[in-house]
Amino acid sequence: MNVPHQRNLRRLSISSRLSFAISTHSAEAGTAPEHIRPAEEHIEEIEEIRRYEDFTTIDWVQDAARAQLQREIARKNRNGFFVRGGGATGWRRKLWESYDAGQAWIVITIIGIAIGLNASFLNIVTEWLSDIKRGHCTTAFYLNEKFCCWGAEGTCDEWKPWSRIWPINYLLYIIFSTLFAFTAAILVKSFAPYAAGSGISEIKCIIAGFVMKGFLGWWTLFIKSIGLPLAIASGLSVGKEGPSVHYAVCTGNVISRLFDKYKRNASKMREIMSACAAAGVGVAFGSPIGGVLFSLEEMSSNFPLKTMWRSYFCALVATAVLATMNPFRTGQLVMFQVSYDRDWHFFEVVFFIILGVFGGLYGEFVIQWNLRAQAFRKHYLTKYAVAEATFLAGATAVICYWNTFLRIDMTESMEILFKECEGGHDFNGLCQRGHRWSMVFSLTIATIIRIFLVIISYGCKVPAGIFVPSMAIGASFGRTVGILVQALHETMPDARFFSSCKPDVPCITPGTYAFLGAAAALSGIMHITVSVVVIMFELTGALTYILPTMIVVGVTKAVSDRFGKGGIADRMIWFNGFPFLDNKEDHSFGVPVSQVMNEELTVLPASGTTVEEIEQILDTTKYQGFPIVQDRSSQLILGYINRTELKYGVDRAKRERSIPPNARCFFTPPPRQGGLTPISATVPVSGSSFPSGGGLSVDFARFIDPTPLTVHPRLPLETVMEIFKKVGPRVVLVEHRGKLRGIVTRKDVLRFQFKVENREHPRSEDDIDADRFREEKLWELIVRSAEWVRRKLRFWERDRVALRHDRAIPDGVDLGRVGEVELDDRPRHGR
Amino acid sequence: MNVPHQRNLRRLSISSRLSFAISTHSAEAGTAPEHIRPAEEHIEEIEEIRRYEDFTTIDWVQDAARAQLQREIARKNRNGFFVRGGGATGWRRKLWESYDAGQAWIVITIIGIAIGLNASFLNIVTEWLSDIKRGHCTTAFYLNEKFCCWGAEGTCDEWKPWSRIWPINYLLYIIFSTLFAFTAAILVKSFAPYAAGSGISEIKCIIAGFVMKGFLGWWTLFIKSIGLPLAIASGLSVGKEGPSVHYAVCTGNVISRLFDKYKRNASKMREIMSACAAAGVGVAFGSPIGGVLFSLEEMSSNFPLKTMWRSYFCALVATAVLATMNPFRTGQLVMFQVSYDRDWHFFEVVFFIILGVFGGLYGEFVIQWNLRAQAFRKHYLTKYAVAEATFLAGATAVICYWNTFLRIDMTESMEILFKECEGGHDFNGLCQRGHRWSMVFSLTIATIIRIFLVIISYGCKVPAGIFVPSMAIGASFGRTVGILVQALHETMPDARFFSSCKPDVPCITPGTYAFLGAAAALSGIMHITVSVVVIMFELTGALTYILPTMIVVGVTKAVSDRFGKGGIADRMIWFNGFPFLDNKEDHSFGVPVSQVMNEELTVLPASGTTVEEIEQILDTTKYQGFPIVQDRSSQLILGYINRTELKYGVDRAKRERSIPPNARCFFTPPPRQGGLTPISATVPVSGSSFPSGGGLSVDFARFIDPTPLTVHPRLPLETVMEIFKKVGPRVVLVEHRGKLRGIVTRKDVLRFQFKVENREHPRSEDDIDADRFREEKLWELIVRSAEWVRRKLRFWERDRVALRHDRAIPDGVDLGRVGEVELDDRPRHGR
Repeated sequence: MNVPHQRNLRRLSISSRLSFAISTHSAEAGTAPEHIRPAEEHIEEIEEIRRYEDFTTIDWVQDAARAQLQREIARKNRNGFFVRGGGATGWRRKLWESYDAGQAWIVITIIGIAIGLNASFLNIVTEWLSDIKRGHCTTAFYLNEKFCCWGAEGTCDEWKPWSRIWPINYLLYIIFSTLFAFTAAILVKSFAPYAAGSGISEIKCIIAGFVMKGFLGWWTLFIKSIGLPLAIASGLSVGKEGPSVHYAVCTGNVISRLFDKYKRNASKMREIMSACAAAGVGVAFGSPIGGVLFSLEEMSSNFPLKTMWRSYFCALVATAVLATMNPFRTGQLVMFQVSYDRDWHFFEVVFFIILGVFGGLYGEFVIQWNLRAQAFRKHYLTKYAVAEATFLAGATAVICYWNTFLRIDMTESMEILFKECEGGHDFNGLCQRGHRWSMVFSLTIATIIRIFLVIISYGCKVPAGIFVPSMAIGASFGRTVGILVQALHETMPDARFFSSCKPDVPCITPGTYAFLGAAAALSGIMHITVSVVVIMFELTGALTYILPTMIVVGVTKAVSDRFGKGGIADRMIWFNGFPFLDNKEDHSFGVPVSQVMNEELTVLPASGTTVEEIEQILDTTKYQGFPIVQDRSSQLILGYINRTELKYGVDRAKRERSIPPNARCFFTPPPRQGGLTPISATVPVSGSSFPSGGGLSVDFARFIDPTPLTVHPRLPLETVMEIFKKVGPRVVLVEHRGKLRGIVTRKDVLRFQFKVENREHPRSEDDIDADRFREEKLWELIVRSAEWVRRKLRFWERDRVALRHDRAIPDGVDLGRVGEVELDDRPRHGR
Repeated sequence: MNVPHQRNLRRLSISSRLSFAISTHSAEAGTAPEHIRPAEEHIEEIEEIRRYEDFTTIDWVQDAARAQLQREIARKNRNGFFVRGGGATGWRRKLWESYDAGQAWIVITIIGIAIGLNASFLNIVTEWLSDIKRGHCTTAFYLNEKFCCWGAEGTCDEWKPWSRIWPINYLLYIIFSTLFAFTAAILVKSFAPYAAGSGISEIKCIIAGFVMKGFLGWWTLFIKSIGLPLAIASGLSVGKEGPSVHYAVCTGNVISRLFDKYKRNASKMREIMSACAAAGVGVAFGSPIGGVLFSLEEMSSNFPLKTMWRSYFCALVATAVLATMNPFRTGQLVMFQVSYDRDWHFFEVVFFIILGVFGGLYGEFVIQWNLRAQAFRKHYLTKYAVAEATFLAGATAVICYWNTFLRIDMTESMEILFKECEGGHDFNGLCQRGHRWSMVFSLTIATIIRIFLVIISYGCKVPAGIFVPSMAIGASFGRTVGILVQALHETMPDARFFSSCKPDVPCITPGTYAFLGAAAALSGIMHITVSVVVIMFELTGALTYILPTMIVVGVTKAVSDRFGKGGIADRMIWFNGFPFLDNKEDHSFGVPVSQVMNEELTVLPASGTTVEEIEQILDTTKYQGFPIVQDRSSQLILGYINRTELKYGVDRAKRERSIPPNARCFFTPPPRQGGLTPISATVPVSGSSFPSGGGLSVDFARFIDPTPLTVHPRLPLETVMEIFKKVGPRVVLVEHRGKLRGIVTRKDVLRFQFKVENREHPRSEDDIDADRFREEKLWELIVRSAEWVRRKLRFWERDRVALRHDRAIPDGVDLGRVGEVELDDRPRHGR
């Protein structure tokens, strides 16, 4: 501990927490002056270390401190630069400073524009692909029906169906659907596996601090942007809203990475991501404020007001660009606009509550069964992702063609269902009294089939969201209820219940029930409230219906909360085992942190460890970092060193000079007052100035975090969880009177949480076995039918072209699972 | 330290952090069994201590732990109870449990209903009072004009003006106005001084954890509810939105205090308050979602999703009740509804930006000058609050009568200004081309006068908000701009700039400019964004104008941020010196916590202090608590004791047995493993079992918090601020290797923050002197004019009735200031 306390340059000592970035001193006696380098070079050198490994969590506390130091150094630097420049430096410096201050807004603007443009492109391509399934434009093949027939009412002669015989059209429809799905799945599988699914749960974890390399990269962005129109046009029961969030966040990530400020700072990057998530929902729904609220309510664990304003701005820019591009050529931002002429009546609240209950039950049912489907998929279908998506698209096309409401696009069907019957809106006799019961039948069938399709489709390996399908289901159910209520009113118009209805005027508007049903289903599946109300609002402009919407969503929320455990995104996080501490939950464990902490510690004493030992520790343990103690017996905490930095230090020292394996390592944190003192860019390797007696020694001082957060062993676990959630360190040391007693990470807390939950809601082995057995049976059935089909095909093929189908249905059945991030063994389905 | 370690009842040892609630042991040898009482009685005993003194901050960490313990004990208790009950306990227990779980929702529902009813009452009374100034209903005096003339178009014969001669009407108008203001001010002064003003900044602090007894009490609620209609009807340039939040939060406070769960838990209470704030804005504007967002964006420093849902629910219930009561008899929730038929054009963005800039400048101007007015008021007018309000109301009535837009109600004027010209809406020729320039003149005058009135009126001692006046100002300015743009378009309809306008169709809608101007001004004064957009939305239903609204508010926000320092509520907090750590600000001090911490510590050693010494410490210091150390030389931290608990312990011990002043006090935290062991309800006073040698001794063990949060002295200040803001302890101990180095409170951090700000933006003594001089001059002028008026009055009175006016203008001029919570000396106006 005979470190000379150097007290010069006190100003920067403030950043002493960042000792890994600021070497304190060279341990060698008489460091040569040319050895001294400015601090910023150091920073850069440190930045080169890959700070966070894949599938770990970032450290918000250290990141904030790092950003602080960077600012400080940048300012100092600039001062030096402008002083050196001399002369008319005033304005140059001001310009630079305002650029620096406004950089965030510039980045956000660029990202917003990019998201808006991408959204326009996606909308146009999706519409064209959806139409090409049914026919083509004779004037120009690249026009979709609307543009082909621009100016004409309804259909026109320029737009031709593929054939005049409907079975051929039907066949072509199916072929196109499967082709689109096949292409999308192939693209995803070959280039960007992360582009599959909706991505919302992963992004949620990433925004909370989880690191998943490549999930937000160029390839994912590219493939998601191409695959999404294909997946939607294929007719699968999937929506574009989840993937919109994903590509928006990808855009934010790849663009902000071009700026040093964000590239270097993982926590600043996450602010941008929250803003992008808002823009993603904003462009998908044409609902900028809804997007901001969605980002707040669902995506972001940490949403300071600064982020809210950024989100606001990003969503504004993106939607403004989308509005300027005007891909729908309606001049409207929203997908469809409805206005209701009539107000609602208080007696309708009864039916609104039914809709709300439906929303909650729907959400729970779909989540439960979709998780089972996901488990099955994970076990058996991982290798057949392409075949699965293709088959699903084919099956969907075959089934849905026969129902009026399933055949058309989901957005279109919602638009139809939301409308009032007055004013000439009629679709296939939806508003006619005579068709009432056939419509109820048709809508019920549509509701049931769509639910089934959503359960099996969501999660298949193409870009796929669950927002719009849920809303479509809610709309068809809601319209059913609306029609039934209308019928009820018409059969007994004089009942006291309906006394507030005026005679001779339509009293019930089934369209509003569809609208409210959609809100309920959306809220039920995602477990969000305020954002749903605002989105429904911005989507349709039905201002009069704000109270009913709030009532319905409130009921849904209450029903959903009965089942607990969060929306589909949260359950998927849990299912996938990401280390995510949910902000929504309120825990009450009633244990001190000492019951949860890890007591089997691998600590590094301040001195005396050899390089060999350290390498051995790095090899044999998987800890993300190591506490540093005075010595093993006293356990007096001196600091903490991250695994990456330790590894880097060892490697670097070995690279620069040949270090004997028995060289001593020193982990003495920099002295108390002298922060930024002469700096050496290399890992100080000293001859014998340390009292270790002979041989070389390596000093890790500047890699050490001297001020890890510490807590008392008896602090309640809940408080520690608060610290993890809100302050965001990677690790908390448990200290008693200066001595290390244990170490707690997010994972320790989560592991404990799961244990408690399992104890409270035990799932017997029998249940699990029964599940597995059922899954096994189902898989056998699938394999057998596949075999049967294959035999038939072979038989049929013999005289025809030999089709290569080995990609679709391979010979061997592999039960292997892909490696996934598993935190712990947990029951595989919902609880 | 020879405390027997008792290890039974290990289950509850988990709550050992709450040692002040759980006595560990009686130090007396051989405690009698009848001395043992169950833990819950203890809790109650402790609860009787007035935990938080006035003008201090609550401790979120301790409160959470306390809640935890209460739950635990309640559960245990209940188990015991139901086991004892035997038999059919299943359903009873379940019922109890669901009541307990749903209690929050029950409380919220009751509060929501109360707020809704109160809002309806307020609306009705306000309308009646406003109308009574102009005339009365001959059929029933208690009807306002609208209800008096129910069914008739416009005016009717039943409603009579007071007189047919307008000067008499004018005089009566002025008399009524001053009378209303006088009554409101007298009520506020006599019964509830806290009912004055808007209350938003105080509530913001209270929600953040500040304690202000009485601010949310019955009296405040009552007087605010009565005074608000009077203040608004008096015609003062004040709004009802801020006070709505205040009375809503009061309602929440007084109702939830009836429930044990909330009465005992200051932090749970604050969740309810956030929800109430949402309901308050919700009922004031008829905008429930806007209310939720306002609560989120402006009021709450800590807004977990749970609180968001509560806010949602509370706002829903309150607005639903309001809608059912239907005080406006329009069947609409919103104050006025506008719909715009035409869409906006891209070239209009230029003018929208002008509106946005106006909003920002308006906000900054009004905040700056209103703060000066407040400072002046604080110095000179504190004693003449009633006279001031009365005078202001009189002056407002005298001035405003002469301007078309100032004479009518602010809400009414907004409604008029927002409307399109088409569809027969015309007011005093606002839409006529011939009147254009006179309207521009009239509107400009209205804007300027209203700004002046807002500056001097906001802050006077009647219930008064600033939302609606700001919006009215924005609306009149916006309409001016709109008319000018319209004129510009009409003079050169063929300019390229206007090329997107269709010929022969009105292109510019001045009403939308008024709408956007109102949004800009509201955003400028409060510095809120998302909530403004949603409120404007819900207020008018102008869905097409969401992008323009967002653009305008975005520009306003950018302009406001140039001036920094937050909206009027934040500046008022700063002005009043409340210890509020602003979440919005992002600090970068770059200093370790050791530079801020208080190093002059008053610590209590674990043993050896006498009761006399402790009383002396309590008398001579003002600290809110004291760290407990092993002994003064080692400074090894053992725990922390709050001032209130220490005082209670001493008093209690003295009350129960006569304690000699030299009795020794022991502050040994309860042993590590034995939490809940035999409990004695009294402060253990032992004979001589302690090694202190002879005499009595007092054991404070159960009042000690054994696990205060500790940090390393070199931790960056920003991280400590994060901990204060997000985790919420009252105090953080600075510890190095187990030894106490210092102590940090919110106030220390704020003090440092102010110091840094003053250093960065110094305000010279000359400036301050100049300000004081100007204030002095103004005051002299006021006094002189008052004297002059008094002389004239005396002269005039000689032959008439002697009016008592000594209350209005007293003889002596007292420059004394009322005692207020001053944190530190700070420059008195905005920076």
